[in-house]
Amino acid sequence: MADKMSLLFVSGTVDKLMAGSIITSGAVANDMDVTIFVSFWGLLQLRKNNGSQPKLSYDGAEMSEEIFKIMQEKKVPSWLDMLRQAKEIGNVKVYACAMFADLLGLGKEDLDPVVDEIIGVSEFVAMSKDSNTTLFI
Amino acid sequence: MADKMSLLFVSGTVDKLMAGSIITSGAVANDMDVTIFVSFWGLLQLRKNNGSQPKLSYDGAEMSEEIFKIMQEKKVPSWLDMLRQAKEIGNVKVYACAMFADLLGLGKEDLDPVVDEIIGVSEFVAMSKDSNTTLFI
Amino acid sequence: MADKMSLLFVSGTVDKLMAGSIITSGAVANDMDVTIFVSFWGLLQLRKNNGSQPKLSYDGAEMSEEIFKIMQEKKVPSWLDMLRQAKEIGNVKVYACAMFADLLGLGKEDLDPVVDEIIGVSEFVAMSKDSNTTLFI
Repeated sequence: MADKMSLLFVSGTVDKLMAGSIITSGAVANDMDVTIFVSFWGLLQLRKNNGSQPKLSYDGAEMSEEIFKIMQEKKVPSWLDMLRQAKEIGNVKVYACAMFADLLGLGKEDLDPVVDEIIGVSEFVAMSKDSNTTLFI
Repeated sequence: MADKMSLLFVSGTVDKLMAGSIITSGAVANDMDVTIFVSFWGLLQLRKNNGSQPKLSYDGAEMSEEIFKIMQEKKVPSWLDMLRQAKEIGNVKVYACAMFADLLGLGKEDLDPVVDEIIGVSEFVAMSKDSNTTLFI
Repeated sequence: MADKMSLLFVSGTVDKLMAGSIITSGAVANDMDVTIFVSFWGLLQLRKNNGSQPKLSYDGAEMSEEIFKIMQEKKVPSWLDMLRQAKEIGNVKVYACAMFADLLGLGKEDLDPVVDEIIGVSEFVAMSKDSNTTLFI
């Protein structure tokens, strides 16, 4: 059986979501299966045409402009493109949190096609409990 | 032996604490034992009559009013009520961080009765190292 | 083989970095080997003479002054001094994230000597997948 990584994407800032996508790529490069459960601010970023202004964590709020400029100059792909690419290469599943989707009235059709399914947190806990690594991001 | 989940509650915003309580419920629904270690901003929220204004993460600061309104309309229980309920149903232990409690001059009598005991971080690390899943929230 | 803990330091606020150092000390006290991978805001804090103003998480922004004052009065060591001390006592390795170092044009000579080496995320994932505990901080 393949090694497994499970990730909870809860934060909604570009840096945290990018960290999640980069770790996903690192897991795929190590032939690990990856299960991602997206909720709260992460799920809001997965709405189609979410329209919200990308922002960095409070930690680096005063450096935002500088960091975004460097990322643009070095042509760093978006976290979502990184995630799509990881899905093409490896065994990566993306689940949206049923409770939060319901709270905001979001159905699968409202979410980016990178999302495979909407499931409950208990199901994710059951899936992830035998993972090598589980991270809350 | 039952499967085990260990959680560190460090953040103090409503969304992160609620995520922690929801994951706890998901673990209980999977018959897992849950050990929670609460420190920093999480511990401040466990003070009796803490009096601090509930707030959401910086990620969603500009949507705070809207989200709080939806939560009220849909009668979402508070994270602390969710945690209390999970304790009634399952094997959930809540520990407060000795170092941070000491730093702020807090004793067990100053904290919500959901807290079982005040312990040091080394003790929590020892308890959690054989967990299926450990999350830093 | 010794028990193992793996930590990702991504946040850059004093409280989160301190939580990371305290958990490292707790792991060392339990004779665990510790592998730390530092990226994003954490890595910025490891620049020599980084010159940035220490700040606390958004969660406790309005209490910053009070908390910093208590930490000074109680002579709480800095997170970096705690980390250095943990390295002296136990088997603790600190790695800087190659991708983010490259993005910001940082070499090993620009980083605090607490850093052992600059490595890629895939290498860290490979190192950490058999850990007892892996935390995203």
